[in-house]
Amino acid sequence: MMQKPSIPKGTRDFSPNETARRNYIFDAIKAIFQEFGYQPIETPAMENLSTLLGKYGEEGDKLLFRILNSGDFLSDVSDNDISEKNLNRLSLKICEKGLRYDLTVPFARFVVQHQSEITFPFKRFQIQPVWRADRPQKGRYREFYQCDVDVVGSNSLLNEAELLQIIAEVFQTLNIRATVKLNNRKILSGIAEIIGQNDKITDITVAIDKLEKIGIEKVNEELLSKGISVEAIKALQPVIQLSGNNNEKLEQLDKMFSCSPIGREGVAEIRNILEYAELLNISVPVELDLTLARGLNYYTGAIIEVKALDVQIGSICGGGRYDNLTGVFGLPDISGVGISFGADRIYDVLTQLNAFPPSAEQTSKVLFVNFGKNEEKYALKLLSKVREAGISAEIYPDTAKMKKQMTYANNKSVAYVAMAGENEITNNRVSLKNMTTGEQADVSLEEMIEILLIN
Amino acid sequence: MMQKPSIPKGTRDFSPNETARRNYIFDAIKAIFQEFGYQPIETPAMENLSTLLGKYGEEGDKLLFRILNSGDFLSDVSDNDISEKNLNRLSLKICEKGLRYDLTVPFARFVVQHQSEITFPFKRFQIQPVWRADRPQKGRYREFYQCDVDVVGSNSLLNEAELLQIIAEVFQTLNIRATVKLNNRKILSGIAEIIGQNDKITDITVAIDKLEKIGIEKVNEELLSKGISVEAIKALQPVIQLSGNNNEKLEQLDKMFSCSPIGREGVAEIRNILEYAELLNISVPVELDLTLARGLNYYTGAIIEVKALDVQIGSICGGGRYDNLTGVFGLPDISGVGISFGADRIYDVLTQLNAFPPSAEQTSKVLFVNFGKNEEKYALKLLSKVREAGISAEIYPDTAKMKKQMTYANNKSVAYVAMAGENEITNNRVSLKNMTTGEQADVSLEEMIEILLIN
Repeated sequence: MMQKPSIPKGTRDFSPNETARRNYIFDAIKAIFQEFGYQPIETPAMENLSTLLGKYGEEGDKLLFRILNSGDFLSDVSDNDISEKNLNRLSLKICEKGLRYDLTVPFARFVVQHQSEITFPFKRFQIQPVWRADRPQKGRYREFYQCDVDVVGSNSLLNEAELLQIIAEVFQTLNIRATVKLNNRKILSGIAEIIGQNDKITDITVAIDKLEKIGIEKVNEELLSKGISVEAIKALQPVIQLSGNNNEKLEQLDKMFSCSPIGREGVAEIRNILEYAELLNISVPVELDLTLARGLNYYTGAIIEVKALDVQIGSICGGGRYDNLTGVFGLPDISGVGISFGADRIYDVLTQLNAFPPSAEQTSKVLFVNFGKNEEKYALKLLSKVREAGISAEIYPDTAKMKKQMTYANNKSVAYVAMAGENEITNNRVSLKNMTTGEQADVSLEEMIEILLIN
Repeated sequence: MMQKPSIPKGTRDFSPNETARRNYIFDAIKAIFQEFGYQPIETPAMENLSTLLGKYGEEGDKLLFRILNSGDFLSDVSDNDISEKNLNRLSLKICEKGLRYDLTVPFARFVVQHQSEITFPFKRFQIQPVWRADRPQKGRYREFYQCDVDVVGSNSLLNEAELLQIIAEVFQTLNIRATVKLNNRKILSGIAEIIGQNDKITDITVAIDKLEKIGIEKVNEELLSKGISVEAIKALQPVIQLSGNNNEKLEQLDKMFSCSPIGREGVAEIRNILEYAELLNISVPVELDLTLARGLNYYTGAIIEVKALDVQIGSICGGGRYDNLTGVFGLPDISGVGISFGADRIYDVLTQLNAFPPSAEQTSKVLFVNFGKNEEKYALKLLSKVREAGISAEIYPDTAKMKKQMTYANNKSVAYVAMAGENEITNNRVSLKNMTTGEQADVSLEEMIEILLIN
């Protein structure tokens, strides 16, 4: 029976070209993480559901992919369980495991589980796929990679500054012009405090987070609908519409926060980070953005987000400081700060900018044409020498028609084609064709290697 | 509520050291795949169960991890389905997807699904994790990586020979002494034919595959129990106990196969591959092993297996030729040949041989001690220069006690520690301590970079 093959919706196959380009991004990011002394870890794709549930809100719990228990998955299920059709309760009885939803919760679990083997501060990075049962749509997938870099066990703001430096180096290496938006949860707390709405901080930040998207009027409407008083909304206006450069904004905030210690602390932290950034000569603009919130309930200090300047797309990197990463797993008072690069969006940016370098294509530098048994022998010897020189090379495995072999070379974007027939073999030469220019040259093995190495 | 964190049985966390060492293996293998003109692809972790089921035998179907449908997973389930407690039928109604079990079936699916975009012969490699609900035991995991390299769409035996060359290069690069065992399904067919047991080829090969493990007497007992006649078993003895070198064995086989065209074809193929191997100067011994079967129902030509010489462990690489990889997905007559490297076993071999090079450890080359705000400023400038030179480096982010910072450097196996106090700052120098020898030198920035680059 013939089956029409397909893959689950929201998932993707990656062709050789796509995989090579994705690896180009991962490799660039990885190299910079390592340059800064971060070390790689990996965690399993499957976690116990007890590890994952309740960490991403009610909506997140629904988006977890659950794995059916092996063997008799009904063993623990009563008739009552079934007749009730309580999907949540039933799924917990037939599924113990789920696919990881992000890299942060597994990392927190890792830190707690291996705390006796870890020397703090622990600087780790992790580049692995995550899975979410989101409704698939353009640019949103059910399987995608995250590239996380975090340091836990250090309160120093130098860590924040170094992460900004990593952001600058990554996007400089990838040739993406970017800008960093910076905020601080303590500033958001200060704002809630000075307008007398300490208990409404979530509603306030959720609303002002939308300022850029929906405009000030709609923001104010939303605030009103959440029960924020007209007076408070009025008091909020000058704060969220602060203008000027970072220093000017910080000075104004400092004044506004004369009665809010937490707010002043946030301002001081931002100042400190910006001083470090200047000292480190960070090559990306860093802009204080008071509307930036990013999952506020999670971050406790700095909040970081990166946007590409030349492409209209969501954030391409984001993160911040969280003071209680591991508390939920029984290890309190471990502060961490980290960022996550969105490889899929970065891929889209590079594609739109046509900014992948030719070296991002992983293909053979040269294809040896296969003319027949005798010629093959000669070609195989040359081929070994070319590979020994560190050059990616191949021979067409069959004695196929010339046209077929050249089509193969073309489709695989091979840079050169090497041909050796009777004449070349007699003279110990090879005919080397540049597939871009069409030029063909009669060369020795050594000359061929030289040409392949420098081009 | 405190949760004691753990991970599902049969899965693993990888520490920085382990991850770096695993990456060392993957990177070595990947570089050689690319040197030979193979290109990377990736497929999703989740496949439709219709793609996976029935491809790995009844036992394999049971070992698939199934993913519970999102949303109302009971929507398609009747009361009857439940009261019947037919686990298999029920699981199909509540699960549409499963985790991939190997890389071969997803690759076959990929080839069929993308056949119009692929230029054949298609040389691809794929390094990704697979999942099996096996009973966890020493050396067997529920999540592990496979490193597959295959070429499809070419019948040339040069492909087999190049795969042997890849095997040789991989294990030479990794400093593992290995030997390759080679067989051919057609020889096994020939053997079954000449002893008059064409229909029992599976039973015969399953039995003789165990020769090394259980010895000839038990093999014969098993053959008898499977209904092979005493006469046939007698006729089999000289074949499976052939002695001599490859050529001597092949000559004897050729004679035995005087009435078995398929057997002679197998011999000719082995000869051809061995001729190529000689021409290519393959640096690993290749031994004809008539008892090698490896999932016989799958391979149709060459069968390949690699053993480490210095460590007692199962095969560390294996594969072969399959003539009908994609037939089950509706694309007939695509022949392929490929091998798969067992990264976990290779890791164990390297660990037992203590053969990981120091470079496999990914850690900072130098740690700058943090003495305080002023010293930090000076250190940060040096640090930037060191990183610009391509050296992995870091500064301790807090002004902690010296002992704590040195413990950190020690635990992270940092090679050098750089210290700059008032004196060094005044003289524009740095004190560089070699953490292996304990030697300490007063050097300039340029000298430090030179030392770090050459050591």
